[in-house]
Amino acid sequence: MTDWFHWLNLAGVAVCAISGTLMAYQKKMDGFGVVVLASVTAIGGGTLRDIMLDLPVFWIKDTDYLYTTLGAALLTIAWLRISPRFPYHYLLVADAFGLALFNVVGMEKALINDAPMSVAIAMGTITGVFGGLLRDVICREVPLVLNGELYAITCITGGLSYAALLYAGFDQHYCPWFALLVTVLMRLAAMRWHWQLPVFKNE
Amino acid sequence: MTDWFHWLNLAGVAVCAISGTLMAYQKKMDGFGVVVLASVTAIGGGTLRDIMLDLPVFWIKDTDYLYTTLGAALLTIAWLRISPRFPYHYLLVADAFGLALFNVVGMEKALINDAPMSVAIAMGTITGVFGGLLRDVICREVPLVLNGELYAITCITGGLSYAALLYAGFDQHYCPWFALLVTVLMRLAAMRWHWQLPVFKNE
Amino acid sequence: MTDWFHWLNLAGVAVCAISGTLMAYQKKMDGFGVVVLASVTAIGGGTLRDIMLDLPVFWIKDTDYLYTTLGAALLTIAWLRISPRFPYHYLLVADAFGLALFNVVGMEKALINDAPMSVAIAMGTITGVFGGLLRDVICREVPLVLNGELYAITCITGGLSYAALLYAGFDQHYCPWFALLVTVLMRLAAMRWHWQLPVFKNE
Repeated sequence: MTDWFHWLNLAGVAVCAISGTLMAYQKKMDGFGVVVLASVTAIGGGTLRDIMLDLPVFWIKDTDYLYTTLGAALLTIAWLRISPRFPYHYLLVADAFGLALFNVVGMEKALINDAPMSVAIAMGTITGVFGGLLRDVICREVPLVLNGELYAITCITGGLSYAALLYAGFDQHYCPWFALLVTVLMRLAAMRWHWQLPVFKNE
Repeated sequence: MTDWFHWLNLAGVAVCAISGTLMAYQKKMDGFGVVVLASVTAIGGGTLRDIMLDLPVFWIKDTDYLYTTLGAALLTIAWLRISPRFPYHYLLVADAFGLALFNVVGMEKALINDAPMSVAIAMGTITGVFGGLLRDVICREVPLVLNGELYAITCITGGLSYAALLYAGFDQHYCPWFALLVTVLMRLAAMRWHWQLPVFKNE
Repeated sequence: MTDWFHWLNLAGVAVCAISGTLMAYQKKMDGFGVVVLASVTAIGGGTLRDIMLDLPVFWIKDTDYLYTTLGAALLTIAWLRISPRFPYHYLLVADAFGLALFNVVGMEKALINDAPMSVAIAMGTITGVFGGLLRDVICREVPLVLNGELYAITCITGGLSYAALLYAGFDQHYCPWFALLVTVLMRLAAMRWHWQLPVFKNE
């Protein structure tokens, strides 16, 4: 499973790097702001997770992640120079997979290091949403995480489904895949039908 | 003293979670932005302190803090759905206690881990103000810490009073309580009489 | 070389503290926002580097850095109270030296701890630009790093020149000085002739 996860993780990093590059494009950034923003979005969440769990930061151990980030940013720049139209719709679908994957990877890492389940769910959510949060804060946007279609709650639901399956006695090998599926489907559904969670009555 | 500190620390976390939730309410956030903002405000400062001191992050070891944060946020949401009026005045007084407590807890943790006194004062200040700083940055406010009534200098004064008492030869058990008292009183006085510290002449 | 680096590092910290204080002055901050902003700018980049490399944070081990930051901030405040005019031009030149120095120190620290070269270059860049990035985010400016005259790419070029010299077989003692020179000269040239790196075609 480790190999699968490594490749899927790299795919998640690439998707997030593309989304950071697109934000830099919208903000008409020059110079190297693109690479800074792509890196922050792609590896920010996982970096915070590893620091908080006191593990070696994942992109320091394995330089594949740095090269993937740079490569994805450069390819996106090349694409945008050739054609101003970008398939945003496919990106959103890919982004849902990236979110789900970061979520599950974050949980797995926390559980392997003996964190309690509630902490593991928090770690999955942080891994999934923190990169995008940083991207938006740096660009002076109100973070998408905070009022966009169930971004964070999708991660938490995925985490809870993992916990439910585990406590129900299923083999631990199936739990991440089930949580991955739940997170992806819920994210896609939230985007498709514009689910909201209005916690305050704002008349 | 450890038990007292644990309970007071939980109270500080709860107060900060409430203040984060109120900010989310003012900004009319939907979905789970509330919980993200409450968590950042409540545990952000302590998390940074533990990471910089290379200690286990406090809420990973002890899940009470996560549950307290969530509970305080949910109760505040429930309150706001019933009544749009919120006792902001009492919250500010509670917030002064939260600030003082985080300040002293931060100093104690640094000193126990053999940090020099100047570093301990910096750690107390970081624990006290960083959560609120993150809250304001995420919400695109100019942070309250930076130009509001002596927020950070209150922490530093509390820290200096701790150092003064210790060097004057008092028993180390009294120092935190004295620093707690100094910080609370100074914060309340700064709010009551709108103390300012104009460092620049801005005619 | 260690002693030289220590003094140069302190000088870099002082320059960044001054730049943070000047930003607080422009934003008409009161109270202790000045010291918060000066500290974040001066020690933010190095703190993040040490946390990610899992090393003791540099200003916790050696209190010289805290005192230098405070001293530089207070001297700048005193200057600004006497004379509203500040020699910004000299500051920019000093800032170029600070950037170069942080860059090289960050690389050295990463290489000593057995990081691969690509990670070391990333660490140098983070050390150089992260403090200024935080300063701008807190003050709600679009970070200078993201669209100002080749800030980040200067660091990366300096890092690449270090790597080139090392792989060309030169003695490791000369590499940091050469990288320092390349970074300073490139930064000064970028400021002098307003170099830009337009990655997108924004007609």
